[in-house]
Amino acid sequence: MQQNLTQQLQLIEHLAERTNKSSKIVLLVLDGLGGLPGPAGRTELETARTPNLDRLAQGGALGAHDPIAPGFTPGSGLAHLALFGYDPLHYDVGRGVLALFGARCFKKDVMRKGEVAARINFCTVEPRNGGLVVTDRRAGRIKDGPAADLVARLREEVKIPGVEFDIWHSKEHRAVLHLKGAGWSGALADTDPQATGVAPLPPAPLAEAAGDPAAQKTAAVVKQIIDRAQAVLRDCHPANFILTRGYDTFKEFPHLPEITGMRCAAIAAYPDYRGVARLIGMDVVPCAEDLVNRSLPADQRTEISIESEFDTLQRVWNDYDFFFVHIKKTDSFGEDGNFAKKVEVIEHIDELMPRLLALNPDVLCVTGDHSTPAAMKTHSFHAVPLLLSAELAMPDEQTSFGERACLKGGLGRLRGTDLLPLMMACAGRLAKHGA
Amino acid sequence: MQQNLTQQLQLIEHLAERTNKSSKIVLLVLDGLGGLPGPAGRTELETARTPNLDRLAQGGALGAHDPIAPGFTPGSGLAHLALFGYDPLHYDVGRGVLALFGARCFKKDVMRKGEVAARINFCTVEPRNGGLVVTDRRAGRIKDGPAADLVARLREEVKIPGVEFDIWHSKEHRAVLHLKGAGWSGALADTDPQATGVAPLPPAPLAEAAGDPAAQKTAAVVKQIIDRAQAVLRDCHPANFILTRGYDTFKEFPHLPEITGMRCAAIAAYPDYRGVARLIGMDVVPCAEDLVNRSLPADQRTEISIESEFDTLQRVWNDYDFFFVHIKKTDSFGEDGNFAKKVEVIEHIDELMPRLLALNPDVLCVTGDHSTPAAMKTHSFHAVPLLLSAELAMPDEQTSFGERACLKGGLGRLRGTDLLPLMMACAGRLAKHGA
Repeated sequence: MQQNLTQQLQLIEHLAERTNKSSKIVLLVLDGLGGLPGPAGRTELETARTPNLDRLAQGGALGAHDPIAPGFTPGSGLAHLALFGYDPLHYDVGRGVLALFGARCFKKDVMRKGEVAARINFCTVEPRNGGLVVTDRRAGRIKDGPAADLVARLREEVKIPGVEFDIWHSKEHRAVLHLKGAGWSGALADTDPQATGVAPLPPAPLAEAAGDPAAQKTAAVVKQIIDRAQAVLRDCHPANFILTRGYDTFKEFPHLPEITGMRCAAIAAYPDYRGVARLIGMDVVPCAEDLVNRSLPADQRTEISIESEFDTLQRVWNDYDFFFVHIKKTDSFGEDGNFAKKVEVIEHIDELMPRLLALNPDVLCVTGDHSTPAAMKTHSFHAVPLLLSAELAMPDEQTSFGERACLKGGLGRLRGTDLLPLMMACAGRLAKHGA
Repeated sequence: MQQNLTQQLQLIEHLAERTNKSSKIVLLVLDGLGGLPGPAGRTELETARTPNLDRLAQGGALGAHDPIAPGFTPGSGLAHLALFGYDPLHYDVGRGVLALFGARCFKKDVMRKGEVAARINFCTVEPRNGGLVVTDRRAGRIKDGPAADLVARLREEVKIPGVEFDIWHSKEHRAVLHLKGAGWSGALADTDPQATGVAPLPPAPLAEAAGDPAAQKTAAVVKQIIDRAQAVLRDCHPANFILTRGYDTFKEFPHLPEITGMRCAAIAAYPDYRGVARLIGMDVVPCAEDLVNRSLPADQRTEISIESEFDTLQRVWNDYDFFFVHIKKTDSFGEDGNFAKKVEVIEHIDELMPRLLALNPDVLCVTGDHSTPAAMKTHSFHAVPLLLSAELAMPDEQTSFGERACLKGGLGRLRGTDLLPLMMACAGRLAKHGA
């Protein structure tokens, strides 16, 4: 039995039909899908021409879900945990841990209990008034190639006697620090000042852990690592310094395949989404680009396309029961405030839907992890549109996939954590509870 | 104050208007009411011609409820507990206890804390290879008459020195075992192998209770009872052996009349539904058939009709405040996969509604305990249609009682446990909470 389960996950573990190896569930997450009306009065999703999704809406059931609860805006990690059935009011994961699981997503044992991870940003600093000030928190958004080379140099040249740690590249200017072994504390403040024109902050315990020896030791070691990295990066302008944030101690998560009895596959282009899937024990499946990129120098690697994600789904179709497919660009354009581009991405996904539908999944759930209205340029609290297509889903009277249709849909307004049992029930994977 | 109450039931106990002796609530449960669309695209309830229910829908409020939570399929016992306000995530009841309360539903003190009950099935066994194999797990679905006679013989002839126990007939091939006094454990595995052509299983503790002396003692006593029963039944083919299952220790349930201040009556034809009502302290009211059947030999007893249930309601109308009326046949035909017959039963109930409405209840709630779509031939997870008719119910725009109308209804999508406070509120039986 898995430890640290919510009551709902305990019930799912208890009722999961573990011998069912035939029905297939696809959870297609369009990151930040939900929007707000633009000048024409329609949202991004309502504006997009989506004949395939509309056909699914016609035969299936619509609804809207609150990832955490009405009014709360989730981060991506927590929002995905909710989609996988992990209540964000019970479970939490720090950015550092998420980033490390993302960077190491093809490994089996990424972290051990008690180890600490933190996000690293390459940044630009300048000497001023005898000290340093940050002039660019992202080192000119340095590309994957040069960033990976710098990480390799840091791994080679930054050594602290008696301390076991590692640094991994993540994406662009982002990397991750992994403090291995025991005796660490995650109660460290960010060294990223979250502003330019000011000095990087010195590594220090959080106020509430000021007297904690483990936090003091961790801060001292991190200081040595940053000092040594500064020396290595001295001539690497614009990436001539590192900022750290999101320190977190690793607490083991219960694993979704064990809870549900389903073989679970994650297909995602971005490290953090791979990370959250890996964290809960899903297999992260490499896409074609991953396989090619391995043998390419860092600066020639290509991005993973949606087409490639769908091809990957087809490639591993027989090996898994539950497929999490993540598409990032809906959120990216939402964050940019680019209404038209978000509409375009949605239309592009709709055009590709026949590839997915050709696999004939028993249950297809199309939704977002949260809303990212272009009008707000950020994650929002708005209920997320949800489409459930399955033979056992009660059809409602809605005929197109959009926020307003979803708010009138037959599934009503759900919590994010309701999706997992609903998908499993529609796939015949949850037994009856009780006498 | 009642012990072991959920927060919601504590609040109800705190706010219940105990001096209100005038308003009447009827909860009419059509077992397994919810369905799925048939070939014509309409569900059983949507297909049925129900002018009386539709008229109620027109003036009242519709909604849909999830007995446990979205995606979870409840057993009948748990589903009814939810309708009565007992959260199935907090309360549980085993089959054995439910069956015993059903068989003894007119008694005040059915079981004491720590006693154990289990279901008994009469079955057919044959000698094979020096052992026994089960050839019919239900002894040819032996009728009430002969089954009751066999139970009488077992009660007479099966005695274990120093052990106090009882056996009661339930319905057809079903009976129930009651281990009285203290020192028992409910952690026993079923002896019913759930298959034919194999041997009955020997009484044994569950794996997790293998070393528990109480479980070992219980298994040893049950073995003596079964051995002795085998000797008594030797020549009673097809009912020549007994299988047992659903062992459960009795934990006292908080009582609904004490929580709500309402005098509660249950009118139900089937033992298990009477059992769950008795378990939470409701009075089970005998129907005309019960009164007549008492003086008839077991094989001449008649089934309780819906007409008789409604007559009974009228008979005791002045003696109670809350009436639970249970109709089984909607579920039975759903389980048989008989769409047309399920439609017929719903139409028949609709024809009888004027009798109920003539009593002029202040609050009438018509719903199911769960869904049993004929298309699935089993309980399902689908939200259950709900009709609330009361002067204080906010009317919505729905004009007919059906699943899709309910999913658009003004009550929205509720949990099963929301019904009790809603019904009480509409009956003026819940005071304002807080300053």
